[in-house]
Amino acid sequence: MQKTIDPYSSELVEDYTKIIKDFGLSRFNSKLFPKPNRLMRRGIVFAGRDLNIISKCIKEKKPYYVLTGIMPTSEKIHLGTKMVIENVKYFQDHGAKTFVLVADLEAAAARGVSLEEGRKRALNFHIPAYIALGLDPKKTTFYFQSENKLVMNFAYYASQKITLNEFKSVYGKADPGRIMSATTQVGDILYPQFKEKMPGIIPVGVDQDPHIRLTRDVVNRSKRMGFFSPSSIYHKFMPALDGKLKMSKSRPESYIELPEDKKSLNKKIKRALSGGRDTLEQHRKLGAKIEQDMAFELLKVHLIEDDKELKKIHDKYKSGKMTSGEIKQIACEKAEKLMDDFNKKLIKARKLVPKLKFIRFQ
Amino acid sequence: MQKTIDPYSSELVEDYTKIIKDFGLSRFNSKLFPKPNRLMRRGIVFAGRDLNIISKCIKEKKPYYVLTGIMPTSEKIHLGTKMVIENVKYFQDHGAKTFVLVADLEAAAARGVSLEEGRKRALNFHIPAYIALGLDPKKTTFYFQSENKLVMNFAYYASQKITLNEFKSVYGKADPGRIMSATTQVGDILYPQFKEKMPGIIPVGVDQDPHIRLTRDVVNRSKRMGFFSPSSIYHKFMPALDGKLKMSKSRPESYIELPEDKKSLNKKIKRALSGGRDTLEQHRKLGAKIEQDMAFELLKVHLIEDDKELKKIHDKYKSGKMTSGEIKQIACEKAEKLMDDFNKKLIKARKLVPKLKFIRFQ
Repeated sequence: MQKTIDPYSSELVEDYTKIIKDFGLSRFNSKLFPKPNRLMRRGIVFAGRDLNIISKCIKEKKPYYVLTGIMPTSEKIHLGTKMVIENVKYFQDHGAKTFVLVADLEAAAARGVSLEEGRKRALNFHIPAYIALGLDPKKTTFYFQSENKLVMNFAYYASQKITLNEFKSVYGKADPGRIMSATTQVGDILYPQFKEKMPGIIPVGVDQDPHIRLTRDVVNRSKRMGFFSPSSIYHKFMPALDGKLKMSKSRPESYIELPEDKKSLNKKIKRALSGGRDTLEQHRKLGAKIEQDMAFELLKVHLIEDDKELKKIHDKYKSGKMTSGEIKQIACEKAEKLMDDFNKKLIKARKLVPKLKFIRFQ
Repeated sequence: MQKTIDPYSSELVEDYTKIIKDFGLSRFNSKLFPKPNRLMRRGIVFAGRDLNIISKCIKEKKPYYVLTGIMPTSEKIHLGTKMVIENVKYFQDHGAKTFVLVADLEAAAARGVSLEEGRKRALNFHIPAYIALGLDPKKTTFYFQSENKLVMNFAYYASQKITLNEFKSVYGKADPGRIMSATTQVGDILYPQFKEKMPGIIPVGVDQDPHIRLTRDVVNRSKRMGFFSPSSIYHKFMPALDGKLKMSKSRPESYIELPEDKKSLNKKIKRALSGGRDTLEQHRKLGAKIEQDMAFELLKVHLIEDDKELKKIHDKYKSGKMTSGEIKQIACEKAEKLMDDFNKKLIKARKLVPKLKFIRFQ
């Protein structure tokens, strides 16, 4: 990505303000949306593009869509992906036609996962996992990139609508693989409009914004086709548990995945960067440095739904009444519950896979 | 194209020698092939790549394939395309499995011909025309690019195997549309090998060589896939009838198409650049400048099959016994016959279209 952002920083607020400015986004206003979800209410969803039209679709019950993808590499889901799915679910619950594509071409080309293997992983894990995280399978249309010739045809078309320099200015660099991947994503993002033109919302992390921008450029150059430019919302990155700058595959202690076994889960939370003071005396006197406490971050972003419950814990911890150990204990318990819940739902969801609505292409 | 060549020049021989050197081709040796066709015998086919393996397949009756494409723009065929089809037919007649793809994606993206319109034109004109020019429909497999998801999937894969600089060095320049088009052609060229690995020959004009080179690069980087690198043969360009440097759409008098009505056909040949001298007296004395006579060129490349017949005319014209007018008269008569023959066969071939072997994709 051309404009990378620092996912862990005490200046998070300023960083995201800069991103909003640099990327030409609008600050997210939760008042636009009825019953905003936890991520929206707590400022984790921080920005968007063209959200008024989506707000209008919800309020006036007009057709619109929400879309996301599955990258069928390992049989694990990152907590960042969980955030995306929660946002997809929000729009699904508020009337959006829902599309989930399996990026098997991308996984094959960029990660060497064969199409057959990607298909197997998607059916065995990712699709059931998305359902376990709340998507309603009856309201969701799934497809595999490698089977969707309409998307591939559109990628071919889209490639003619951009110059190499424009591509570079959006993505920072250009190479044939990246160009193919990006134009295919443009096809994916617009696919729900091939039959019926309607607004659509794509929940993403900021690192995915180039795809949104490229799609909007292609739409602008294809006016006679009548596409709506995709809207988007952006969530903040989850900081690394260990307090380092970024989560990294090379430091498994820096992030939690779904599923993850309890022992490792507890260990990671217990070792996470804490906001507690050096001594109990100091802690009682000064209160926690709550903004750097990763266990509290987990509670806020993922583990506590009830705002009042969170506020209570926040106030007690910040004032020093609760200790870092107590916060971690709560996080461990709730994370275990999340994991149990996910695993149970995953098993149930697997049974639904044979009945799912896949698009069949002739 | 990075290395363009001058299709009309009195130094044709030297130019083509330079092309062979610059492009790393081998000079065509008609002894490699049993019963070489007119274009091979007369040096119009002048170069190739990896022809020994094709020669071996023919002589040992081993499986190999020949492949060409249809660009479904106007309902006309250029005489250059006729040369390609004659070469395809040669290999078909010598045991090659034959594949003809309709480049409807290319026509849509590069020329604005909708997929529906491209499909219609291919079925109504181009496919029957290819049959009228000699392809055996029973031995030929046709497909539409836009329907061949395996080709599109392979294009996605191929795009990851080349860098932007490598692409530039093959094509002279790189832009997203060109990259998409080229990687799709790589998929087309290798498609006959997806199920069964075998050598293949692609008859092309030199301007199409970059696709061959790119395909060979992708094959070299995908060794575990076990593809044979495509072989190729190259025909010389047909010079412009009016003696200008290049044939051009803006000067219809510079080229003949199939079909073309007799009046316009005769007019074009009558006005073609002649090798006759200024006066009859001079002509009888000096003989024709045969190498610049476009009517004779037509006889040589397209209109006279029998080598002895051609030789006789050549000698008489070169020695001044025959006049430019007589040559043009012969060319007119034979071109009319070619056109009549083509039109009749086209009508018959149209009736075969519903019975053709198209690949069906699920």
